Amino acid sequence: MRCWINGIEQAHIDATDRGLQYGDGLFETLAAFDGQCPWFEVHYQRLWTGCDRLAIPLPDKAVLLREVEQAAAGQHRAVIKIILTAGSGGRGYARSANLQANRIVLCHAWPDYAEACWLQGVELKLCQTRLGCNPALAGIKHLNRLEQVLARNEWQTREVAEGLMCDMQGNVIEGTMSNVFVVREQDLYTPELARCGVAGVMRRWILETAPRLGFEVHETTLRIEDLQHADELMLANSLIGLWPVKMFESRHYQPGPVYQALLKCLLTEYPLINTQTMNRFDA
Amino acid sequence: MRCWINGIEQAHIDATDRGLQYGDGLFETLAAFDGQCPWFEVHYQRLWTGCDRLAIPLPDKAVLLREVEQAAAGQHRAVIKIILTAGSGGRGYARSANLQANRIVLCHAWPDYAEACWLQGVELKLCQTRLGCNPALAGIKHLNRLEQVLARNEWQTREVAEGLMCDMQGNVIEGTMSNVFVVREQDLYTPELARCGVAGVMRRWILETAPRLGFEVHETTLRIEDLQHADELMLANSLIGLWPVKMFESRHYQPGPVYQALLKCLLTEYPLINTQTMNRFDA
Repeated sequence: MRCWINGIEQAHIDATDRGLQYGDGLFETLAAFDGQCPWFEVHYQRLWTGCDRLAIPLPDKAVLLREVEQAAAGQHRAVIKIILTAGSGGRGYARSANLQANRIVLCHAWPDYAEACWLQGVELKLCQTRLGCNPALAGIKHLNRLEQVLARNEWQTREVAEGLMCDMQGNVIEGTMSNVFVVREQDLYTPELARCGVAGVMRRWILETAPRLGFEVHETTLRIEDLQHADELMLANSLIGLWPVKMFESRHYQPGPVYQALLKCLLTEYPLINTQTMNRFDA
Repeated sequence: MRCWINGIEQAHIDATDRGLQYGDGLFETLAAFDGQCPWFEVHYQRLWTGCDRLAIPLPDKAVLLREVEQAAAGQHRAVIKIILTAGSGGRGYARSANLQANRIVLCHAWPDYAEACWLQGVELKLCQTRLGCNPALAGIKHLNRLEQVLARNEWQTREVAEGLMCDMQGNVIEGTMSNVFVVREQDLYTPELARCGVAGVMRRWILETAPRLGFEVHETTLRIEDLQHADELMLANSLIGLWPVKMFESRHYQPGPVYQALLKCLLTEYPLINTQTMNRFDA
């Protein structure tokens, strides 16, 4: 792991940073392939939305891109995490007028996901921890992530890859680290995220790409039963790309044609796995 | 401002600290008088509750007290902030098995509140930012404080001392940095905090002390109208102690007998202001 703060390589931040004190900031998790983040632009756009919502100054795009590429340099595959905080100093919730936002760029090793995650799918667990609703924070990737931490720590077994989270009304919202898509008669359905949840960049890609591949996509209200009655169930984020769910609440699912069509399309621009692996679907 | 991390004076923390990454931690803000925190014990009890809820190991009481007293040493009045995070390292919401919680103890200058805050009262503003509800996080003083940050940054004018926050259903919950008490016919009413809000140590003191002074206290559901029809309205936290509200939503209030009785009692163990100041109520 390496870390740059405001462009300078260092491992420590000021203990008065508002990111630590209050979670007053945003983050992005990007996949880097051969030193490049192919989707930097969409991550930057979401950061723009988050900065606008939290009234944090948006970092200059060229500066941030340079820092991200500096962090990814020389790596075949890497995870780049950008944290942007409201700045350091002061005490109390009021931001002082002279705050300077801090950019923290971390480079982590690429996670060692098994190819079976893409080929056979993963097990999804229903979490007890719920998501609170607040439209002011919904959709953006802010640093207040205790709900996800509590949910993710509900299980330790490696067989379970992801946990599903509902809001207080029992509506399905998302996985702890991914967005959820249900397929029914070749149409896709995903929870609308106006009241809680994170609007992932891979989710956005599916919303834009599925119609081009001939599939309708609906942002809607989903219940647990909708997942149990799905033809296909899949998870999406910027590191896993797409994973089919093979088991949820005792029901078994198969990687289906909608998933396969989307993944094939994704791999043309996002080399998550060896494309030859995908040919095994056709075999 | 001075800062100690796990007992060692230093100004910086590891950028992989989960407090920064996810707000995965807790905090306490204590008043220190002449190098002592008279209410260390009740803060430690709340920390105990928070650690239990978030599954973070509770720091040893004697160790933490020593660090707090080290930070407060030699100060007439000071603000001691304890931050306890789940630890450093890793990536992703899952906590690794070998995490070690980090203790951050900060000593800040005592805020320069005017005596008029206690004598005449303060102006309270209604915030637009709402509190999301999550029983898993309600009551404890965790590091996910973006709602308070957004609410506190709704106003800049120094005339307004505090902002009132409601939940999504419009129930009054708390101030951005304080708990709220309504007095009606010498009974006290304060929002119950089972679904959101922070259960402050000064709130707890009032719940315990008011009955001893002959006042009934009710934890209940409060609406804006209940504040507007109050005989007295007051705010409580561990730095301000108690402040009467002099104005809220165009209504004017006076510091009343319930406030005065509570404050007099508080000052016997918590020297926030010169007790002679209080005599002016009797003049």
